[in-house]
Amino acid sequence: MAEVVHMIDSEVFLAYSTYATIVTLKMMLMSPFTSYFRLTRKAFANMEDTSLDMSGEDKKKLVRVDPDVERVRRCHQNDLENVIPFLVIGLLYALTGPPVSSALLHFRVFVVSRICHSVAYLLPLPQPSRALCFGVGLMATASMAYRVLTTALYL
Amino acid sequence: MAEVVHMIDSEVFLAYSTYATIVTLKMMLMSPFTSYFRLTRKAFANMEDTSLDMSGEDKKKLVRVDPDVERVRRCHQNDLENVIPFLVIGLLYALTGPPVSSALLHFRVFVVSRICHSVAYLLPLPQPSRALCFGVGLMATASMAYRVLTTALYL
Amino acid sequence: MAEVVHMIDSEVFLAYSTYATIVTLKMMLMSPFTSYFRLTRKAFANMEDTSLDMSGEDKKKLVRVDPDVERVRRCHQNDLENVIPFLVIGLLYALTGPPVSSALLHFRVFVVSRICHSVAYLLPLPQPSRALCFGVGLMATASMAYRVLTTALYL
Repeated sequence: MAEVVHMIDSEVFLAYSTYATIVTLKMMLMSPFTSYFRLTRKAFANMEDTSLDMSGEDKKKLVRVDPDVERVRRCHQNDLENVIPFLVIGLLYALTGPPVSSALLHFRVFVVSRICHSVAYLLPLPQPSRALCFGVGLMATASMAYRVLTTALYL
Repeated sequence: MAEVVHMIDSEVFLAYSTYATIVTLKMMLMSPFTSYFRLTRKAFANMEDTSLDMSGEDKKKLVRVDPDVERVRRCHQNDLENVIPFLVIGLLYALTGPPVSSALLHFRVFVVSRICHSVAYLLPLPQPSRALCFGVGLMATASMAYRVLTTALYL
Repeated sequence: MAEVVHMIDSEVFLAYSTYATIVTLKMMLMSPFTSYFRLTRKAFANMEDTSLDMSGEDKKKLVRVDPDVERVRRCHQNDLENVIPFLVIGLLYALTGPPVSSALLHFRVFVVSRICHSVAYLLPLPQPSRALCFGVGLMATASMAYRVLTTALYL
């Protein structure tokens, strides 16, 4: 991590910025997606939200759990649990000054694995497709963490 | 993103540090808030937590779900889903060297929208007040992501 | 925050990289841990996941809630709610140029408190052990946030 100041302005850092932003936007998309399912499935979490439904149905019955909404929420939760570690470890990894090709490989594999994971979760595709996507993303993050710890270990 | 090294020590970065810390502290406040509601509503998630209740009630009955506790938890979860993307994209945005006035506008709008969101969620205020706060915060983050991608795109 | 560019390459930043990576990996461990409990307790969240179970039991009965799985998930959620604020505020704190000894103290106290928190949650240990671990970690993050706000306040 000796030349870290010069690295910030490097291609690796630009690549990190790009892929981190893309995968964060993908994660954020889950929120409007959940809202969409709540409105179309008529399944709300709060009594006051039922006023957003225009169908004139009994409001109290609209505060309920819907399997499709829960599936989107689990997909979102899995993103939180995996994308956030990538964002932090990926930033530290970018600052260790890895080769551009190696960094691009890690970032691309992770982002593609998470997009495939969401597709596999939401359709859903039969297992083990989702488990594989999850595992590939985890490996990419773990590999970056290994480089951070071997380059910058200071306990 | 050419002068990024100089930008880190800039007013934009100081502004990011300030607003990121404020909104993170606001998000963290939800944890003690949940504990407070669990203790006053006597609704715990774990059997061992019931020992924190001094009322001498039947402990088994205290492991239960309470609507007020669940509301605070949903509010906290919504913060996680929205504040964390802001923290990451806001950092990358600050490193692209935007004008100070533009950066301050983004940071202020986001932080105010999230504080209003929590107030609207916890009171609760009638819809669409909460949906509006949510949307404004999402727009601020999306606008910063747009600048990051147009300034630093490297695929 | 005047000498921030020089600070990035400093011992404080190396220490941040190390402890941030360790605590993030610890948080990520909760995912495979949850999968392990889902497989051994035969309690899945999705219908398609039941194909991962080889026991030949009635698949529909395997989509269920198990108390051990829920405990791991609450532990993971508590990590998300506390580790992520540490990661963000810790980074900004490292950039304010604190003394190395002070930074190491904050990072070590936080990481140890979160490891103890998970042990206390999963065994589980009697309260208030978990509440104490939680509180110590919260204090470490709050103390770093205080330094960031007093050093870099720019509203």
